[in-house]
Amino acid sequence: MSARATSEPHGVLTVICPDRPGIIAALGSFFAERGANIVEAQQHSELASAKFFCRFEFEPRGARAAELRREFAPVADQFAMEWRLTFTDRPKRMAVFVSKYDHCLLDLIWRQRAGEIYAEIPLVISNHPDLRPIVEGFGIRFEHVPITPETKIAQEQHELALLAEEQVDFVVLARYMQVLSPVFLARYPMRVINVHHGLLPSFPGARPYEQARERGVKVIGATAHYATEELDDGPIIEQDVVPVTHRDTAADLIRKGRDVERIVLARAVRAHVEDRVLLDGRRTVVFV
Amino acid sequence: MSARATSEPHGVLTVICPDRPGIIAALGSFFAERGANIVEAQQHSELASAKFFCRFEFEPRGARAAELRREFAPVADQFAMEWRLTFTDRPKRMAVFVSKYDHCLLDLIWRQRAGEIYAEIPLVISNHPDLRPIVEGFGIRFEHVPITPETKIAQEQHELALLAEEQVDFVVLARYMQVLSPVFLARYPMRVINVHHGLLPSFPGARPYEQARERGVKVIGATAHYATEELDDGPIIEQDVVPVTHRDTAADLIRKGRDVERIVLARAVRAHVEDRVLLDGRRTVVFV
Amino acid sequence: MSARATSEPHGVLTVICPDRPGIIAALGSFFAERGANIVEAQQHSELASAKFFCRFEFEPRGARAAELRREFAPVADQFAMEWRLTFTDRPKRMAVFVSKYDHCLLDLIWRQRAGEIYAEIPLVISNHPDLRPIVEGFGIRFEHVPITPETKIAQEQHELALLAEEQVDFVVLARYMQVLSPVFLARYPMRVINVHHGLLPSFPGARPYEQARERGVKVIGATAHYATEELDDGPIIEQDVVPVTHRDTAADLIRKGRDVERIVLARAVRAHVEDRVLLDGRRTVVFV
Amino acid sequence: MSARATSEPHGVLTVICPDRPGIIAALGSFFAERGANIVEAQQHSELASAKFFCRFEFEPRGARAAELRREFAPVADQFAMEWRLTFTDRPKRMAVFVSKYDHCLLDLIWRQRAGEIYAEIPLVISNHPDLRPIVEGFGIRFEHVPITPETKIAQEQHELALLAEEQVDFVVLARYMQVLSPVFLARYPMRVINVHHGLLPSFPGARPYEQARERGVKVIGATAHYATEELDDGPIIEQDVVPVTHRDTAADLIRKGRDVERIVLARAVRAHVEDRVLLDGRRTVVFV
Repeated sequence: MSARATSEPHGVLTVICPDRPGIIAALGSFFAERGANIVEAQQHSELASAKFFCRFEFEPRGARAAELRREFAPVADQFAMEWRLTFTDRPKRMAVFVSKYDHCLLDLIWRQRAGEIYAEIPLVISNHPDLRPIVEGFGIRFEHVPITPETKIAQEQHELALLAEEQVDFVVLARYMQVLSPVFLARYPMRVINVHHGLLPSFPGARPYEQARERGVKVIGATAHYATEELDDGPIIEQDVVPVTHRDTAADLIRKGRDVERIVLARAVRAHVEDRVLLDGRRTVVFV
Repeated sequence: MSARATSEPHGVLTVICPDRPGIIAALGSFFAERGANIVEAQQHSELASAKFFCRFEFEPRGARAAELRREFAPVADQFAMEWRLTFTDRPKRMAVFVSKYDHCLLDLIWRQRAGEIYAEIPLVISNHPDLRPIVEGFGIRFEHVPITPETKIAQEQHELALLAEEQVDFVVLARYMQVLSPVFLARYPMRVINVHHGLLPSFPGARPYEQARERGVKVIGATAHYATEELDDGPIIEQDVVPVTHRDTAADLIRKGRDVERIVLARAVRAHVEDRVLLDGRRTVVFV
Repeated sequence: MSARATSEPHGVLTVICPDRPGIIAALGSFFAERGANIVEAQQHSELASAKFFCRFEFEPRGARAAELRREFAPVADQFAMEWRLTFTDRPKRMAVFVSKYDHCLLDLIWRQRAGEIYAEIPLVISNHPDLRPIVEGFGIRFEHVPITPETKIAQEQHELALLAEEQVDFVVLARYMQVLSPVFLARYPMRVINVHHGLLPSFPGARPYEQARERGVKVIGATAHYATEELDDGPIIEQDVVPVTHRDTAADLIRKGRDVERIVLARAVRAHVEDRVLLDGRRTVVFV
Repeated sequence: MSARATSEPHGVLTVICPDRPGIIAALGSFFAERGANIVEAQQHSELASAKFFCRFEFEPRGARAAELRREFAPVADQFAMEWRLTFTDRPKRMAVFVSKYDHCLLDLIWRQRAGEIYAEIPLVISNHPDLRPIVEGFGIRFEHVPITPETKIAQEQHELALLAEEQVDFVVLARYMQVLSPVFLARYPMRVINVHHGLLPSFPGARPYEQARERGVKVIGATAHYATEELDDGPIIEQDVVPVTHRDTAADLIRKGRDVERIVLARAVRAHVEDRVLLDGRRTVVFV
């Protein structure tokens, strides 16, 4: 993976289109003609859907984003491409939703501070007031938005207003114990990342560790996925596991699980931030 | 884990009983009074069920199995123990049931030949004739027992007769594509080990790899468990996983899965053969 | 592993002695006679050195530490035991030494706050002033003790005085970029835990990630070990790895390595704090 | 990874050259102009050495190998490319060298038979006669070539003659307990794959498991690498690990290690066979 601490910002072009000969030639020529240097190129041809996916990261060498976008449009049309062209001089803006658990939140903040996640965190929203001091201690805006069945619709509108105000690009649910409504999700399609503390499709819903212990599994895990209307059913970005034994109590599973949750979520957020995640129906193509 | 290639056979005592003070003292004293040397002792106290589990492996130093069993009975009664005392001079006898896939079967035979699995394999049963030459090439008896819905009951009786004839202690379903009836399983309770090519409880039943690919998971796995009446629902002995990506085709998942299936099944069989697996309701305590 | 948040404190007895019949009987009887209930017992017989190792965790049920120690002495003498009896009502006191990297330090503090590591952290010592605000923000004493070749001996005396003043039981070197002198280590034998950012014995010394990249390895790792006079040569408590590829730059290795360092160090500190680590010459027996 | 069992053979082009703008455009155009369809493209730009590496797998759609090679030469010249163009209708021919251990050999044969490794195995050479019956049982030629210090030079010439006779493309040392001379290696540069039963650079040379146990490591591993004149020092293709504990005897390490050796070697051979391994000095770029 490429470092972001380079002098010149990089450009990233992602493309999804029907697979056919000539796509790589067209993309390669587009950059070559403009003197741009490709530093990382990844491609995937999905046989089942006959779709082509790629991600090109390039040094623009003077080429400007607006120009490139305008000039790329005809190429895209020719191949019926869905595409996206971003530049790394504008870090994405991420809002984090939490409840009471702080481990995923603190980990994201630490990684962002350490330069592992190239994004800004202008806003943390919680349905509980508990984490306010920690969040504000980092100089990040904290908004307490309590949710009840009666207030949910109105409060989500309030949250959307906060996100708009802070120009948020995507949302991370860092062990947020609320389900977002379809209305909310429609405003951030494939831009809400959730971490589930189970290895989906095993143990969806609440209490996955208790379920895991009851079933007597020998491996537990965590899943980072895009939130969709169907609970714990969205496209999976990242998963990982940790072995467990009969010795592990419910408390041990929670402890071991926390380490996996943090790592899985961090990897997913990093991949999203760097435009490495493309959608193939219900699956993801992740170019790492 | 202890090597079995020692000059004197070892004894193995496993115990399950209500947890209370004094059990370890009673067990330790029983062996000490007879001059037996404990080489490996493992214990687990399950808080939820208030049960005590242990496995003691010992050098008998002259003590005889029959004698030890008779003398241990009063100790066991005092603590309401379920117990089992075996000696390693009699390797367990294992039958392997297969269909057409040979990878798990060959792996078990190779490990048995290499001394990794301390058991005898007097019999392989298959509902297809394909693997006969390979099995007989190893000098192992092969019986072709085709199964149709109409013949299933009768054929299972035939299989049970074969198992009895060969004095089989336990059965390994090495990718055997048939479900055993409750009648069969009742004859070998917790002595039929199945390998499922999915990470249970994810993807039970047929076609787990296809399901995994459709769902877009980033990790696949395999599960070795005791077969029970409920399909793919018995106590799990061992699980492991392998990471997968969008690049992996269905064929790749099968290929990667085979390696996990073999390793998971081998570990489970090894643990069973060495009396390391104890049952705690629907869960297992595995002393490795 | 047992939870520590129980109403009654637990006792932990660890024993190392020559292996011979009767040890478990003697230990079991000692606890049974006092009505203490063993909740976790682990044992290891090392064939090569003919040594016996064990750890018993018990509910004392009224038995007092001083009494138990006095009464256990004759049992210990009989079997030539090295032993140690501690109670969980007195958490160990841990000092953390750091330089400029904060990831291991923050992780330890977070885990201690979250109850994963049952210890107190009264003191952080650093040869750089940088981390003072963060450490003091957690209400922990921070001492800046700069080290030069000329001042090293005197400054280590100063550090030892600080440790004594804070009644520190053990020291964690959380990416501390200084080598401790034999004089210092002699005061905390097997009570200084270091994390090395390489998979020892590969890549000892400085710059392991650079060495790893030059050698082109496909796996990197981290090692937590007791510090001894010989650099990066002490008994290993815990190791873990992460796969790497040709894509990973030196910066990527550092980033991936940080996650492993944190997890490996946390596991080692947790095991040490719970008296789960016993020494067998240059090796460790770790009862988890 | 692409399946090989397709109706039309695939072509594979690998390229190493100085990095500069325009390479991907030139390669893409080359294929597009000939109507060939790229099914898998991977690229790596190494900043340190300013080198470009890539592998293109394509459906030739009628284009012929000889023609493509002739027509590609001017493109290659323009960019100072080292390149290689192969077609999958000619599986590589692999010779396996063994001593007495059979686990890696049997695993390779099984995978080749199962279609996991797309190669032919015309020849097995051993310095011991023990494995002849097994090898010949698979219908593979077995040659016993004993080696003594006195006969080594002559016997290696004999081996080279056998390899030439069988038109062998590359050699796999599947736990072959002999060091090949520089003369031999010069004839198969980067075409001799060795598996070392240690996680290099840890524990090179003989007896790595014994060394690992003495050092008390908590992780062991295996390494597949190209053999070079310097023992266990060639470019690493693949590594993997398995956790170990104080319980594991030397025999256990050997047993656990065997599983890793087999998997690591199989992955390396598979990657080599599919032209996925490129050299970057002492490192490898492996496009999987």
